[in-house]
Amino acid sequence: MTDYPSALDPWTPFARMREARPLVHNITNFVVMNNTANALLAAGASPAMVHAVEEVEEFAGIASALVINIGTLSAPWVEAMRLAARQAARRGIPWVLDPVAAGATRYRTSTAAELVQLGPAVVRGNASEILVLAGAAGRGGKGVDSEHRSDDVLAAAKALAASAGTIVAMTGEVDYVTDGTRVVSIRNGHAMMGRVTGLGCTASALVGAFLGAGGDRLEATVAALAVLGVAGELAVERSPGPGSLQLHLLDTLYTLDEQTLRARARVAEVS
Amino acid sequence: MTDYPSALDPWTPFARMREARPLVHNITNFVVMNNTANALLAAGASPAMVHAVEEVEEFAGIASALVINIGTLSAPWVEAMRLAARQAARRGIPWVLDPVAAGATRYRTSTAAELVQLGPAVVRGNASEILVLAGAAGRGGKGVDSEHRSDDVLAAAKALAASAGTIVAMTGEVDYVTDGTRVVSIRNGHAMMGRVTGLGCTASALVGAFLGAGGDRLEATVAALAVLGVAGELAVERSPGPGSLQLHLLDTLYTLDEQTLRARARVAEVS
Amino acid sequence: MTDYPSALDPWTPFARMREARPLVHNITNFVVMNNTANALLAAGASPAMVHAVEEVEEFAGIASALVINIGTLSAPWVEAMRLAARQAARRGIPWVLDPVAAGATRYRTSTAAELVQLGPAVVRGNASEILVLAGAAGRGGKGVDSEHRSDDVLAAAKALAASAGTIVAMTGEVDYVTDGTRVVSIRNGHAMMGRVTGLGCTASALVGAFLGAGGDRLEATVAALAVLGVAGELAVERSPGPGSLQLHLLDTLYTLDEQTLRARARVAEVS
Repeated sequence: MTDYPSALDPWTPFARMREARPLVHNITNFVVMNNTANALLAAGASPAMVHAVEEVEEFAGIASALVINIGTLSAPWVEAMRLAARQAARRGIPWVLDPVAAGATRYRTSTAAELVQLGPAVVRGNASEILVLAGAAGRGGKGVDSEHRSDDVLAAAKALAASAGTIVAMTGEVDYVTDGTRVVSIRNGHAMMGRVTGLGCTASALVGAFLGAGGDRLEATVAALAVLGVAGELAVERSPGPGSLQLHLLDTLYTLDEQTLRARARVAEVS
Repeated sequence: MTDYPSALDPWTPFARMREARPLVHNITNFVVMNNTANALLAAGASPAMVHAVEEVEEFAGIASALVINIGTLSAPWVEAMRLAARQAARRGIPWVLDPVAAGATRYRTSTAAELVQLGPAVVRGNASEILVLAGAAGRGGKGVDSEHRSDDVLAAAKALAASAGTIVAMTGEVDYVTDGTRVVSIRNGHAMMGRVTGLGCTASALVGAFLGAGGDRLEATVAALAVLGVAGELAVERSPGPGSLQLHLLDTLYTLDEQTLRARARVAEVS
Repeated sequence: MTDYPSALDPWTPFARMREARPLVHNITNFVVMNNTANALLAAGASPAMVHAVEEVEEFAGIASALVINIGTLSAPWVEAMRLAARQAARRGIPWVLDPVAAGATRYRTSTAAELVQLGPAVVRGNASEILVLAGAAGRGGKGVDSEHRSDDVLAAAKALAASAGTIVAMTGEVDYVTDGTRVVSIRNGHAMMGRVTGLGCTASALVGAFLGAGGDRLEATVAALAVLGVAGELAVERSPGPGSLQLHLLDTLYTLDEQTLRARARVAEVS
């Protein structure tokens, strides 16, 4: 499968990111800070975790990309998120929103909905979170408890992308990336990845790194998810369980090469 | 050793927990959040780390169990612990208290003593912590500096359980679980486990997961400690040091099967 | 290379630390708490992470050493750092300052500069951070953006050590430890260690542990860096990537013996 449509080749954005070593400013949750930083380092980016209101604007002023993740939000952190997101907007640097568990509590839902209004380049979430955000904006989300037909979910993702002027990266058994018009699917990854905490957060952080290196944003997002999915698959092959998986995933992000990535990535234009 | 008294068979509660995949709400410390979440995921539960006062009651309202760990306590977190514990009490869901380093500072001791009054289903600590809590309640604890005869320690654990109406799980070279009347010992685990940070916290979290799946609470607590002890022993056999141990422990929590658990668990009714 | 000048033999301080199992009080950042604690445990120390203003003085009152790391600083944490540093000064226990990313924001620079005034036994940082601190004190630092001649950097480290009355441990491709007069170099470690988050923080924490066991402070600092460098080198030899490296590093800190350490450590008096 080396005959990609050139726009969807995941290697080019990955090589660009490794070359650029972008400084990625993360305001993320306590659970995943360590493995997010390690994944960014292994893949080739330069991570920093900075959240104090006293410094967050200044730091967003020197970063190449910003990642905001509400996993363990609290009032002072949400204020820091606002300040950093506005600084990113002023500077025109891309930022990624990870609306962790939006829908689980009103506080999460309202915080995520507010942050979407601040103009993220990409919103990366699972189907439930994307539906909640689409619904919060009055575009037909049905909440986390209902069974969703996959067509409905994809329609909600496209509607959210179009109305919020963002790219939506909805990850799951199949990942979808859409800007409201184009839709690209990535069929990589493995179910065991769900047994390692925070690999969704890692996906968001990698998207930030890829965006921080420039290039087309939808293609960069697709490439980041393909890299993580392929690295995860390769790691699972050597892992009897999730402890090994976390280790091999970091090793694979570090060693993954052009030939392997192109041979394994299953990226396709859906519409 | 497959001829357990059926009530002490650790497999039945473990299988029940894996089947139920209980949502375990953790208010825990910064040091262990990642490996606690990973241990819960590996064993088969569904962890969430949620601590903001704005959402903690609402989240405790959808969880199957709550785990409160004071390892890196501070004023806003203690307030969140109170709110969540009261919500758990209102809903009748079980919650576990891990009084990390009670006795080391007055703030820890008083916070732990206050939380015990809010009605945990289980208090999981080491001998020093249990003695401090028993002493704080005027039941003969002698503080962390004295040498303790193991009979005295067990008597303090039973007294604490009886007076507070809770189950006490006191872990160490031998683990004891008591409701004030019954006492069960678990002789599993390995000294190298003390070289991995937070495995006591993991024990508390697994107890929460097992409680969250229902069944007899004392038996669920015993089973959780047996599973961790057996998984730890098996992991140590493959580990030259504590880095490997952490990895193999997660893998083993994921793969541990009925035959191995029953063959290795050393659970006995003491009184 | 077993013919060390006895004063620079890294084994003696390491053996002393393992024997003493010093209680090391860490006020450190969220990213590295878990692996810092694990590194201290693996090497043989007894770590505690305690930061609440309500208890930090009392806890610093029972510790053998204190490590203050500003990696994810915020106002309440900085207040706790001040309280703990003053308590350490009153008790005469050694404390280590890790001025993470001083220079990146004004808040970091001013906080680090303030903490230096509270009398750390050791300041452990990279060249940029040391230059910023030297510059903040009016001693010729040129900021993080300029190219530095290594002679200039070393002169700044010596000047900072002399004027602040501290030991400066400046880590990089070659590590230097100076009290303003003596300068010792350590040529261990490996570039892949830069792909694991927080190994600089681990270095600071190990320095704290070694100081906490007593002996000459410059020699203890040198030994801590040599132990980490040698353990890192040995770990890299078995690691295809940074995930494996983190695991093997912990294992090696646990197993490292006298003969191996002495054969691998490359410690030399520079002046």
